Amino acid sequence: MSYRIEKDTMGEVKVPADKLWGAQTERSRNNFKIGPSASMPLEIVYGFAYLKKAAAYTNCELGVLVKEKRDLIAQVCEEILAGKHDDQFPLVIWQTGSGTQSNMNVNEVVANRAQQLAGKVIGEGEKTIQPNDDVNKSQSSNDTFPTGMHIAAYKKVVETTIPGVKQLRETLKKKSEAFKNVVKIGRTHLMDATPLTLGQELSGYVAQLDHGIKALENTLPHLSELALGGTAVGTGLNTPKGYSKRVAEYIAEFTGLPFVTAPNKFEALAAHDALVETHGALKQLAVSLNKIANDVRMMASGPRSGIGEIIIPANEPGSSIMPGKVNPTQCEALTMVCAQVIGNDVAIAVGGMQGHYELNVFKPVMAANVLQSAQLIGDACVSFEEHCAVGIEPNHEVITKLLNNSLMLVTALNTKIGYYKSAEIANTAHKNGTTLKEEAINLGYVTAEDYDAWVKPEDMVGSLK
Amino acid sequence: MSYRIEKDTMGEVKVPADKLWGAQTERSRNNFKIGPSASMPLEIVYGFAYLKKAAAYTNCELGVLVKEKRDLIAQVCEEILAGKHDDQFPLVIWQTGSGTQSNMNVNEVVANRAQQLAGKVIGEGEKTIQPNDDVNKSQSSNDTFPTGMHIAAYKKVVETTIPGVKQLRETLKKKSEAFKNVVKIGRTHLMDATPLTLGQELSGYVAQLDHGIKALENTLPHLSELALGGTAVGTGLNTPKGYSKRVAEYIAEFTGLPFVTAPNKFEALAAHDALVETHGALKQLAVSLNKIANDVRMMASGPRSGIGEIIIPANEPGSSIMPGKVNPTQCEALTMVCAQVIGNDVAIAVGGMQGHYELNVFKPVMAANVLQSAQLIGDACVSFEEHCAVGIEPNHEVITKLLNNSLMLVTALNTKIGYYKSAEIANTAHKNGTTLKEEAINLGYVTAEDYDAWVKPEDMVGSLK
Amino acid sequence: MSYRIEKDTMGEVKVPADKLWGAQTERSRNNFKIGPSASMPLEIVYGFAYLKKAAAYTNCELGVLVKEKRDLIAQVCEEILAGKHDDQFPLVIWQTGSGTQSNMNVNEVVANRAQQLAGKVIGEGEKTIQPNDDVNKSQSSNDTFPTGMHIAAYKKVVETTIPGVKQLRETLKKKSEAFKNVVKIGRTHLMDATPLTLGQELSGYVAQLDHGIKALENTLPHLSELALGGTAVGTGLNTPKGYSKRVAEYIAEFTGLPFVTAPNKFEALAAHDALVETHGALKQLAVSLNKIANDVRMMASGPRSGIGEIIIPANEPGSSIMPGKVNPTQCEALTMVCAQVIGNDVAIAVGGMQGHYELNVFKPVMAANVLQSAQLIGDACVSFEEHCAVGIEPNHEVITKLLNNSLMLVTALNTKIGYYKSAEIANTAHKNGTTLKEEAINLGYVTAEDYDAWVKPEDMVGSLK
Amino acid sequence: MSYRIEKDTMGEVKVPADKLWGAQTERSRNNFKIGPSASMPLEIVYGFAYLKKAAAYTNCELGVLVKEKRDLIAQVCEEILAGKHDDQFPLVIWQTGSGTQSNMNVNEVVANRAQQLAGKVIGEGEKTIQPNDDVNKSQSSNDTFPTGMHIAAYKKVVETTIPGVKQLRETLKKKSEAFKNVVKIGRTHLMDATPLTLGQELSGYVAQLDHGIKALENTLPHLSELALGGTAVGTGLNTPKGYSKRVAEYIAEFTGLPFVTAPNKFEALAAHDALVETHGALKQLAVSLNKIANDVRMMASGPRSGIGEIIIPANEPGSSIMPGKVNPTQCEALTMVCAQVIGNDVAIAVGGMQGHYELNVFKPVMAANVLQSAQLIGDACVSFEEHCAVGIEPNHEVITKLLNNSLMLVTALNTKIGYYKSAEIANTAHKNGTTLKEEAINLGYVTAEDYDAWVKPEDMVGSLK
Repeated sequence: MSYRIEKDTMGEVKVPADKLWGAQTERSRNNFKIGPSASMPLEIVYGFAYLKKAAAYTNCELGVLVKEKRDLIAQVCEEILAGKHDDQFPLVIWQTGSGTQSNMNVNEVVANRAQQLAGKVIGEGEKTIQPNDDVNKSQSSNDTFPTGMHIAAYKKVVETTIPGVKQLRETLKKKSEAFKNVVKIGRTHLMDATPLTLGQELSGYVAQLDHGIKALENTLPHLSELALGGTAVGTGLNTPKGYSKRVAEYIAEFTGLPFVTAPNKFEALAAHDALVETHGALKQLAVSLNKIANDVRMMASGPRSGIGEIIIPANEPGSSIMPGKVNPTQCEALTMVCAQVIGNDVAIAVGGMQGHYELNVFKPVMAANVLQSAQLIGDACVSFEEHCAVGIEPNHEVITKLLNNSLMLVTALNTKIGYYKSAEIANTAHKNGTTLKEEAINLGYVTAEDYDAWVKPEDMVGSLK
Repeated sequence: MSYRIEKDTMGEVKVPADKLWGAQTERSRNNFKIGPSASMPLEIVYGFAYLKKAAAYTNCELGVLVKEKRDLIAQVCEEILAGKHDDQFPLVIWQTGSGTQSNMNVNEVVANRAQQLAGKVIGEGEKTIQPNDDVNKSQSSNDTFPTGMHIAAYKKVVETTIPGVKQLRETLKKKSEAFKNVVKIGRTHLMDATPLTLGQELSGYVAQLDHGIKALENTLPHLSELALGGTAVGTGLNTPKGYSKRVAEYIAEFTGLPFVTAPNKFEALAAHDALVETHGALKQLAVSLNKIANDVRMMASGPRSGIGEIIIPANEPGSSIMPGKVNPTQCEALTMVCAQVIGNDVAIAVGGMQGHYELNVFKPVMAANVLQSAQLIGDACVSFEEHCAVGIEPNHEVITKLLNNSLMLVTALNTKIGYYKSAEIANTAHKNGTTLKEEAINLGYVTAEDYDAWVKPEDMVGSLK
Repeated sequence: MSYRIEKDTMGEVKVPADKLWGAQTERSRNNFKIGPSASMPLEIVYGFAYLKKAAAYTNCELGVLVKEKRDLIAQVCEEILAGKHDDQFPLVIWQTGSGTQSNMNVNEVVANRAQQLAGKVIGEGEKTIQPNDDVNKSQSSNDTFPTGMHIAAYKKVVETTIPGVKQLRETLKKKSEAFKNVVKIGRTHLMDATPLTLGQELSGYVAQLDHGIKALENTLPHLSELALGGTAVGTGLNTPKGYSKRVAEYIAEFTGLPFVTAPNKFEALAAHDALVETHGALKQLAVSLNKIANDVRMMASGPRSGIGEIIIPANEPGSSIMPGKVNPTQCEALTMVCAQVIGNDVAIAVGGMQGHYELNVFKPVMAANVLQSAQLIGDACVSFEEHCAVGIEPNHEVITKLLNNSLMLVTALNTKIGYYKSAEIANTAHKNGTTLKEEAINLGYVTAEDYDAWVKPEDMVGSLK
Repeated sequence: MSYRIEKDTMGEVKVPADKLWGAQTERSRNNFKIGPSASMPLEIVYGFAYLKKAAAYTNCELGVLVKEKRDLIAQVCEEILAGKHDDQFPLVIWQTGSGTQSNMNVNEVVANRAQQLAGKVIGEGEKTIQPNDDVNKSQSSNDTFPTGMHIAAYKKVVETTIPGVKQLRETLKKKSEAFKNVVKIGRTHLMDATPLTLGQELSGYVAQLDHGIKALENTLPHLSELALGGTAVGTGLNTPKGYSKRVAEYIAEFTGLPFVTAPNKFEALAAHDALVETHGALKQLAVSLNKIANDVRMMASGPRSGIGEIIIPANEPGSSIMPGKVNPTQCEALTMVCAQVIGNDVAIAVGGMQGHYELNVFKPVMAANVLQSAQLIGDACVSFEEHCAVGIEPNHEVITKLLNNSLMLVTALNTKIGYYKSAEIANTAHKNGTTLKEEAINLGYVTAEDYDAWVKPEDMVGSLK
C-alpha cells in the first residue's frame, strides 16, 4: 500500500494514499483498535456534514470566511450527504469521548476533498482549506459532536421510529375496528376472566402506542436544541457575534427540521440529558411492544395444543427438525429488539450520569445507542406490521369454544345475587366439571330463564366510551 | 393472642382479634412471608381511601348504594387518610401482582371499621357493610389498584419530587447569578480548558433541572388517567352507566388534582406504561443530579491537595479515624439515591414489559419503585439544597491561581495567529514549564502588548444569555 | 421530649435523653432526612457488632486495649446481636457513602451503653469507653463498613438465600422424579413441538437452580475477604502488628463463617466488586426463577380456556369481582421479586463503578441492595415452594388430549421418510384439520401399521440421563 | 441481477444466482429488514462450522451418514472457518429467536457449496447433500444455535477477553512494583486523607482485575456445556445412541477447548443462564475497569490546574479548538466500553428471563451482546494498556507538594494524643491556613521533636504488600 505524509500539531503521520482523511484520523485508527472498524454511525457523519455546511454559510455571512471557501466546504458536505464518501470515515465509537477524532475526520476529509475540487493534489502545496482554521472555524468538537448527534437522532426518530410505530399503530387500529364484535374470553393472571372483544383487546395496544408516540414527541423539543456556538466550554469563544442563532437557522433550513440553538450551551456540552430523555421514550415503546408481541404469540399459540384464538401469517418454515412447524418469528424479532433497547437505556444512563465539569465524554456511546434503538424500533415495527400484524385474523371456532367454557361468566350474576353466591356457583362447577348454568340452578340461586337472560357474554363487554 | 373467625369464599380464617382486617388479608399475611412485613407503601393505601370514597359517592349518586352505606364508607376512608389505621395494612409488595390482596385489605378494614362505627361488634351479626358487594361495588382489584397507584404516584411527584427539585433549582439559580462574574478555568476531559464563570457553570445545572422538571411534568397527563371503571378486564362490567367519568371527577375533587378517567381502560389495566413514562423522567433527573453532585464534590475537593475551587458546608466530622476531616456527604447521599433510581428504572421496565393479556401483574413492584424514587429524589434534593448547595461559595484565591496557570488561554490567539502556531506556543510552554506569554514572545508570534490585549480571561467567557 | 448534650469534634449537639446514640448520629439524623428513617439494614449493624467485638479482642490481645474495656465492648456487642438495641440505629442508607455515620452510631451506642453497664450515667463524668479511641480503635469507617457489609451479606446468602433456593430445588427435583413418565407435548416458540415428560421439563428447572447455586457459591470466597485492618486508606495505619489477620480470625470464630483478611486492602476499600460479583449471581437466580415461575403459570393457566396441563394450589380467592377465580399468585410474587433483583443489579453496578481513589462511597446503597435481593430471593423461593411448587400435580386428562392433538409427532418420521415428506404430511393435516395418520396414509408415504409403529410419543422422549 | 429458484417446504424462492444460500435464508432476508444486514456475528457462524463438522463426523461414526457426505460437509466447514464464505451469511440478529434461520443459512451454504465441490451446479440435479437431512442430521436449530453461541462465546472469552485483561493486569502489576516507594497523599471521598504509595494504589487495581479474571473463569464450566444432542426439545429425538457425548468430544477436539455435553439438555435449550453467568463476570470487569480508568484520568488531570500526580502518554491532539490540549482519551474509550457492557448486561437478563417452556427465543440477542462485550473489554484493555497504562509515570514534584500539604498527616498523632486533640490541631491549621506542626506546637499538644518523629508520611504507609 502506498502512503502520503500528513501532519498535525504533534508531527507527521503516514496515511494511505488513496484516503481523504488526515493525520488525526489516522492516529485514531491506530490508537483505538476496539471492536469492528467504522462503528461510528454514518448518521453522525451526515449530521456533521449538515453542520459544517451551516457553519461555513454562517461564517461567510458574518464576515469571517470567504465565499470561495464556503462554497468548497458546502460542496464536499453535499457529497458526503449523497453518500459519496462513506468509506472515508473509518473511526470507531470507542475513541475519545468528545468525538474529537470524528470531528477531525470530517474536517480532514472536507479539507482534502476540497483540495481535489480546487484542482490540486492532496498533500501538495498549501492547503486551500485548513481543517481547523476553516472547516472547524467557530467550532469545537465539544459543540459539533453534540450537534451532529442531535441532528442524527432527531432525523432518525422522525424519519424511522415514529413512522414505523405509526404504521403498526394504524394496522392495529384497523384490526381493532374490524374485530370490534368478536367477543372472546378475557384473561387476567393468565387465567380465565370475564369476556371482552378482540377489538377491545387490540385497542389497548393502540392506546399504548399512542401514548408512546406522544411520549417520544414530548422529547423532541429538547433534542432540537443544538450546542453549536458553545465551542470549547459553552462560552462561545472564537465565534462571531450572532453566530449560534444563525447557524441553527441554517441547520434547520438544510435539514427541514425545527432545530434551534440551545438556550444554555453549558448544559448542551456537559450533559446529554436530551439523549437520556429521548431514549427514555424509546424504552417506553420497547416496554409496550414487548407486551403486544407477547400477547400476539400467546394468542396465536398452537396450532392444536395452545391457545389458538388468532391466526398469524406463516412466513417461513419454523424448524430445521420439526416438519411443518410455523412460529411467531416476527414477535420474536420484535421482543429481541425490545430487550436490546431496554439494555441500551442503561448504557445511556450510565454514560449520561458521568459528565464532568464542562464536558460529558460519553458522547459517542450515548449517540450510538440512541441511534441503534431508534432504528431497531422503527424497523421492527414495520417488519412486525408487514409480516404479522396485517395478517392477524380471529379463529372464530376456537374463540367461541373458549368463551363458552369460561366459569368467569358468573361475574354477571354479582349484581343480581351477590359475590358470595356467585362464587359458590363457580367453585361448584369447577369442582364438578359442570357448567355454571347447571350449578346455578342446582343451588337454587337462579332460574334457567334468569340465567339465560343475565349471563350473556355479548352483554358483558360494555359500551366503553 | 386472641383471635376471631373471619370468612371468605374459601372458608374460615383465624384473625387477630384486635385487627380490623379480614380473611383475605390474613391469608395473604400467611402466604407471602417475603421480606419485611407491611412493605406495601402506605401511599397506595391512601390512594385506595380516596378511590373507595369516590366510588361510594358515585355509586350512591347513580343509585346503586344507599346514602347510609356511602357515609359509613366515606367516614372510614377519611380516618384512613388521617393516618388512624396505618397499622391495619400489614401486607407486602410481594403478593399477587394485581394487588388484589391489598384491595381486599382495604375493603375488609373499611367494612369492619364501619361495623364499629355502626355500633356493632366485628364478627358479630350481619355485616353492615360488605367488603365485596359494598366497599368494592363497581370495582375490581384490576382497576382499583392501578387507580390507587396513579393517585399515590401523582401526589408524590407533585408534592414531593417537583417541589424538592425546584427548591434545589432555585438555590442553584441564585448562586449562578451571584457568581456570574467569577471567572475560572474551564475543564473538559477533566483537563484544563478555556475559562468560563462559576455562574455559567452553575447555570448549566439549572438548565438540566429545568429540562428534568419539564420532562417530569410532561408525564403527568398519562399518570392522571385512572383505570377505575374498567373493573375486571377493562369493559366496565358491573358498573352503572356514567360511572367511570363521575368517579374520576370525585377523585379529582377529593385530591385536588386533575385526574381523569382513562380513555382506554384496556391499556390502563394491562399495561402500566404511565409508570414507565413517569419513572423515565425520574431517571433523567437522577442522571442530571449525579452529574451536578459529582461536579460539586470535585470542585470542593481538598482542602489542600485537591481542586478546591469552591467551599461547601462542613456538616459533621467526616472520619472516625482521620481527625478534622470533612467530606462532601450530601453529594454522596444524593449520588447514592441516583444509583438507586437508575436501578429502579430497570425493575419498572422489567415489570412493565411483562403484562399478559388483560392484566399486568407487576403492579405492586412497579408502584413501589416509582414511589421510592419519587420520594428519594425529592428528599435528597431538599437535603442537598439545605445542607450543601445553599452554602456553596467560591474560593477566590484558588480560582484565580488555577485560572492564570492555564495553558488553554492560548485559544484566544486562534483567531489572531491560527490554531497551529497557537498549539506550538502551548506545547512549548508545557514542555518548558514556562508561561504562554514568554513562549508567545520567544517564538516571535506575538508581541507582549498584543498578548496582553488579546489574552484576557474575562473576555473569553462570552456574553451568553 | 427531654435532651442531653453530646459533643464531638465539631461541638455540642442535643440528643434525645432516652437514646444511647451520640452527637454524630444525631447530626446525621438531622442532615439526612431522605426517605423513611432507620432504613440502614439492621443486618449491617449486627455485622458491626461482630467486628467491634472482634476488634476489641484483637486490640486487647495485641496489647493496645485493656481487658476491662474489651469486656465492656464485647458485652454491648452481644446485646446488640441479641436484638436488644434495634431501636438505637435510626440512620438511613442515604448518608455519607462511606457509612461513617453508621460506624459512629455503633461506636456511640457501644460507648454510652458501656457507660450504663459500668454503673454510670450517660453524659456524666468521663466516658469509661471512648467511641473513637476505644470502640473504633485500630479501625476506620473505611474498613469497618465494608467489613460489616461483607459479614451481613455473607450471612444472608448462606442463611437465607441458599437454603431457600435449595428448598425449592429439592421439591422440584422430587416432582421431576414423580412425573418422569408423564409424557406431554413440548412447546418451542410457544408452539406445539415434539413430546417430553413433565419430569424432564421440571428437571430443566432443577438444573437451572443447581447452576445458580453453584454460581452463587463461587462468589463466596471474594465475599469472605474482610477489609478490616486497612483503616483509612488501606495501609493499616494505626493498627498494631498482626492485627488484620487476627481480627478476621476472631470474626470467623464469632460468626462461625470462613472469613479471612483481604489480601489487598486497597481493593477492599476502594472497590466493592465482591458485592457486584455476589449480586451478579443473585441476578442469575432471578433470571432462572422468572423462567420457572412463568412456565408454571402458563402450564397452570385456565382452568377451562388456557393450557391447564398442571394444577397448582388454590390459596386464596383470586379476584375481588370475579367469584371463584383462583390465580397463580405465588408465581406473581416471585416474578415481582425477580424484577426487583434485576433492577437492584443495575443500582449496584452504578454504585460499584464510581469508586474514586482510595474509597468507594456507594457502600450503603450497594450493601442495602445486596441484602434486599438476597432476602427476597430466599423468602420468595420458600414461599413459592410451600404454597405452590409442593402442590404441583399433572392434569393427566388435559395432558393426554393436548399430546395426541399435536402435529409435531410427525418429527418421528424424519428418519424414516425424510424431512420434506414429513413436512408435507403435517402441513396437509394442518390445512385440512385432519390427523397426521390420515394424511400420512392418504399421501401414500406411510402405511397404517408403520405409522403406529413409528409414531409413539412415549418413544420420542429419549432416555436422557 | 440474475436469480435461481430454491425450494423449501413452503415453496419456491428466488435467490441471487451468485450466492450459496438457499430458500430459507432468502425468506429471512426479506422478512427481517431490521437494522444493518449481516448483523448476526460471524463468530456464531464459525461456531456452527465447528459443530456441523463434528456432527458429520459423529453421524458417520455412528453409522447414519456416509463417509463421502461427511467429508464434503467437513470440507465446506473448514472453508467457512478459513473465512472463505464470510459474505454468505447475510442474516440479522433480529430474526427468529431460536436462530433457526441462521442454522438453515449454514445448512444451505454447506449443501450448495458441497454441490459445487462435488462438481455439480447449484440448483441443478439432485442435491448431493441435503440441508435438513444431511447437514442438519441429528440436530435441531434448538440445540445447534445454543451450541454455536457457546462455542463462539467461550472462544471469545479465552482468546480475546482474558488475554486482554491479563495484558493490562501485568502492566499495572509492573507499575505497582516500580512505584512501590512513591509516597503520595491518599484521598477518600475525593478529600485529602492519609498517605499511601502510588504502588499500593495501583495494586488495588491489580487485585480488582485478578478477582475479575477469576470470576470470569468461574463461569467457563457452565459455558463449556453444549446443548447439541438435545435436538428439538431436549429429549434427543432423532439422534443415534451415544451421539451427544461423542459430538461434544469432536467439538472439543476441533476447537482445542474443553467442551462437554450438557448434563441437562432441557436447561440448555430453554434457558441461557450460562450466558447470563458469563456476562455477569464481564459486567464485573466493566465495573472494575471504570473505576481504574476514572482514577487514572483524575490523577492525570491538569496539566496545570488539576491533580497532576501522574503523567500519561499524549497520543493525539486533544482538541479541535484548544491548541496544545492533550486528553485522557484511552480512559474515555475504556469507560464508554464499560457503559455499553453494563447496558448489555440488562439486555441479556431481559432476554434470559423470558424463556418459555422448552425454548428460550432470545438466543441471537443474548449471544450478540455477550460477544460484543467480550470483544470490547478485551480490545479496550489492550488499547488502554498499550497507549496509556504502559506510559504511566509519577510526577514526583507534584506528588511531594500535595503530600506535604495534607492536613491528614495528623492521623499519625491519634495513637499518641488521641483523636480529639488531633482533630483540634487539624481544624485549627485548616482555619488559620497554617501547618499542622505549627498548630500542634501552639496548642501545646506535641513538641517539635515529637512531631518530627511521629509524623512521617513514609512511616504511615504500612508494609502492606
